[in-house]
Amino acid sequence: MTKRKSESLSPEELRTHGDRLFLSHLSVDCVIFGFHEGQLKVLLLKWKDGPWCLPGGFVKHHESVDYSATRILKERTGLDEIYLKQFHAFGDPQRERGKRYKQGWIANRFVTIGYYALVEYSKVFPQPDLLSSECKWWDVAAVPDLIYDHKQIMTTALETLRLSLNDHPVVYNLMPLKFTMPELQRLYETILGQRLDRRNFQKRMLALDILVKLKERKTGGAHKAPFLYRFDKKKYDRAMKQGLVGGW
Amino acid sequence: MTKRKSESLSPEELRTHGDRLFLSHLSVDCVIFGFHEGQLKVLLLKWKDGPWCLPGGFVKHHESVDYSATRILKERTGLDEIYLKQFHAFGDPQRERGKRYKQGWIANRFVTIGYYALVEYSKVFPQPDLLSSECKWWDVAAVPDLIYDHKQIMTTALETLRLSLNDHPVVYNLMPLKFTMPELQRLYETILGQRLDRRNFQKRMLALDILVKLKERKTGGAHKAPFLYRFDKKKYDRAMKQGLVGGW
Repeated sequence: MTKRKSESLSPEELRTHGDRLFLSHLSVDCVIFGFHEGQLKVLLLKWKDGPWCLPGGFVKHHESVDYSATRILKERTGLDEIYLKQFHAFGDPQRERGKRYKQGWIANRFVTIGYYALVEYSKVFPQPDLLSSECKWWDVAAVPDLIYDHKQIMTTALETLRLSLNDHPVVYNLMPLKFTMPELQRLYETILGQRLDRRNFQKRMLALDILVKLKERKTGGAHKAPFLYRFDKKKYDRAMKQGLVGGW
Repeated sequence: MTKRKSESLSPEELRTHGDRLFLSHLSVDCVIFGFHEGQLKVLLLKWKDGPWCLPGGFVKHHESVDYSATRILKERTGLDEIYLKQFHAFGDPQRERGKRYKQGWIANRFVTIGYYALVEYSKVFPQPDLLSSECKWWDVAAVPDLIYDHKQIMTTALETLRLSLNDHPVVYNLMPLKFTMPELQRLYETILGQRLDRRNFQKRMLALDILVKLKERKTGGAHKAPFLYRFDKKKYDRAMKQGLVGGW
């Protein structure tokens, strides 16, 4: 029973003596991206007594950092086994400038390890935690003020994702199984934050040789319904591993 | 004077009360690569009382993590303003299995943030620290047993470097200003750990459009002296930023 007890802290105990359960000076923050109705979304939590923030948490004494990120992601979204990537550790001593706590364990300096996740929007059921009143999707272009340096962490995640599009297809987990070329282009445009030429996009995307064109067309639209595509998972996986240029 | 005193600890104080100067649970390790006589090298330290390890250290209370890495690199090599890249945080709770210390601050669990650096071999003058008896270059293919999980950290750095070659030219800092195509190929082969076809390598490398072919040939060799090349720094920098495929 002692072990069980040590596995949870009240919000007050967390603030004053979080080191009973967690490592000091170290946190994890998750930038969880989804794609819905032509918009790139990010999942944010609202503290009961305050601002919006990225879903994050601390690392238990006997838990790996990667596992902490997985646990937090699961607690917030109900999902596991998804694409979760550690992208950067944020270690500026001033990174919690203007922080809310003046004393106790939680007022320490924290270095945070950032992860980003690409999830299927429709499979996620956002869940606030004990300290939060809300957990919901926001359009990336319209996120509110975030606590500490969380907006910078989100921006860095987005830049990392953007750069990775130059070299890797990446977006598998953001798309439904079957999609049209305009839908895929819309996702690229949303991540990149810029419009792309339709013909160039299609030409370049097909040249990457990671898509399969299906015989079906998208139904329910106009009479000139666009063709559907899916990823060739084998070729996609190879491109994820070797980069789009291919190995040397 | 108090501040000055707090800026240094004896080896014994570090072991027992390192938290007077440094954050707990957090370290930095640097994988410093150089290239010399056709071999990829890595800079290692030997502890006075024991095994070889990566040059690393701890994060002072008011110091950024990136700065810690820069400081450690400078202490070991005398170099600053070099290509230093944070590549991964190693956060396995078992990562110090078999560790040497049973008690005191240094016996805590440490999450380490890994950086790799690509340096010009000829500009480096390896310097051991207070705890070390030696600091020297080793062939990557022939490193001795390393402490803790340092060999895994080195391997991950090398894999990251390898993968980045698929997408980014990367090797600027490892090459002299002017070089021959066979010299560049040798570097790629060493990083990749495999032989490459000479004609394919040259064709592909030239197609990347980041090299300038000089009118000079390498002197001092046989009568069929090979041409010299240098990087077109502007195109190189663009490829580093956008990836070799180029931006969308």
